[in-house]
Amino acid sequence: MKFTVTRSIKAQQKLSRSLAVRNKSIALVPTMGYLHDGHLALIRRGLKEADIVVTSIFVNPSQFAPGEDFARYPRDTQGDLKKIKSAGGQIVFIPKAPDMYPDDFQTWVDVTDMTKALEGRSRPTHFRGVTTIVTKLFNIVRPDVAVFGMKDYQQAMVLRQMTRDLNWPIKFIIAPTVREKDGLALSSRNKYLSPAQRREAVALSRSLKAARQAVRTGKTDIKLLGREMTRIIKETAPSAKIDYIAFTAMQTLQEVKTVGPDTMASLAVQIGPVRLIDNMKIGGGKK
Amino acid sequence: MKFTVTRSIKAQQKLSRSLAVRNKSIALVPTMGYLHDGHLALIRRGLKEADIVVTSIFVNPSQFAPGEDFARYPRDTQGDLKKIKSAGGQIVFIPKAPDMYPDDFQTWVDVTDMTKALEGRSRPTHFRGVTTIVTKLFNIVRPDVAVFGMKDYQQAMVLRQMTRDLNWPIKFIIAPTVREKDGLALSSRNKYLSPAQRREAVALSRSLKAARQAVRTGKTDIKLLGREMTRIIKETAPSAKIDYIAFTAMQTLQEVKTVGPDTMASLAVQIGPVRLIDNMKIGGGKK
Repeated sequence: MKFTVTRSIKAQQKLSRSLAVRNKSIALVPTMGYLHDGHLALIRRGLKEADIVVTSIFVNPSQFAPGEDFARYPRDTQGDLKKIKSAGGQIVFIPKAPDMYPDDFQTWVDVTDMTKALEGRSRPTHFRGVTTIVTKLFNIVRPDVAVFGMKDYQQAMVLRQMTRDLNWPIKFIIAPTVREKDGLALSSRNKYLSPAQRREAVALSRSLKAARQAVRTGKTDIKLLGREMTRIIKETAPSAKIDYIAFTAMQTLQEVKTVGPDTMASLAVQIGPVRLIDNMKIGGGKK
Repeated sequence: MKFTVTRSIKAQQKLSRSLAVRNKSIALVPTMGYLHDGHLALIRRGLKEADIVVTSIFVNPSQFAPGEDFARYPRDTQGDLKKIKSAGGQIVFIPKAPDMYPDDFQTWVDVTDMTKALEGRSRPTHFRGVTTIVTKLFNIVRPDVAVFGMKDYQQAMVLRQMTRDLNWPIKFIIAPTVREKDGLALSSRNKYLSPAQRREAVALSRSLKAARQAVRTGKTDIKLLGREMTRIIKETAPSAKIDYIAFTAMQTLQEVKTVGPDTMASLAVQIGPVRLIDNMKIGGGKK
């Protein structure tokens, strides 16, 4: 189909309905724009799963707390449209904030248990914003498939739980993190790193890989692994401030004491102006 | 189509999808069963709006607080099926509680402002249960139209707000309250009234009609109207305990001081074992 940009809720609903009538399946890739190769991998994955990929671009105010980087979150709609087109995405939905959150807006979706740890501890109102906006996107776009990235591991698990709990008939896909050659997970926020900070930013993936390697040699005590990760981060990124390092069961996000086959290590680290997150499965052998 | 009862989420999702593919529109009438003529009026209204009416029967545990009447809420599935069939309803969805709320269930939908007053003050966790179950029913049944009754005025307004805020492409219909000849609003809970209590129960509608009449003769001060309603209730139902009498703007549920064209009077009254609610538009002339 012709590359199409929708900018109103009604237009997207109408378009989604016309696709449903023509029996075309839809994959949704929700983004906040300023797209990188990680996003494009999600779009390509969507194209394998459905006839049409709808990419939404919306810097969602309700998932930022006061003092966070909502205002300076990077934006480049024209560049995004070119990238989506080149990746094969057919529809881009770019709603306006006053349409998504009218003055009398007052409905929120909360996932309770899984949002308490990790990012939820540091950003207590963040996930309510994420689950609410994704609910709205699900209802507007009506996808058969939704694709999220593993870089935001907790977000992916929370949204999968929400999708199950609230019974959308949507196939939920979590695609692997795309990384720079040196291991840094792609993120729209990386652009705010100075060259020196960019070199330090490799600390996150380096510490995760070291933990994974240590587990392979039989070290499964998380206190020990946490100390080793901290050491590597301090060595690689002297200016960094560690927000958290956590070891959790992949599916439930419950913290563990010893590494098991489905244990994830996750961390958040402030480097200069940027709060970076990353994660890796460290239990269960290769991959 | 053949009268069909679905008892699993998957079966209903499959059926709804097959109807969508055949371009049949669906109206949803969510109920807790023990149907009366008020429910049947909703089903008939649904049949005017859509090709197929799906009536759900589910006594939703999450909208009852501990100590409320969940366990003794009346149930009569065989009787309900006969009534739905006679009203022309084609599909009945009767899910099981462990399927609707599995052990790891943890996602809730909240409408914030409009749930604070009236029923929300007396039953602080009630509406979270209602909005969450209706979200689930919307996603399972995928209706084009949803029909609710005005007897549960605040519930209808809250669910309409939720439907707008979260962008379901669903036409939201609120149908008028059906009453007994003496004015008592139909409710599944009326069956628990003794003959003497049943006679007292007319107090609710009688006090509302008196308020409406008083407004027509120019009395618009809500303190005065509230006193008059209280007097009538005490006179008609000496054993009654008034939970609240409230005067609100129809759409926003904000309490008002003077009656305007869209003012609603609502009340909750305990008569014997039963907590009854009712409401009436008292502003704005005849109907």
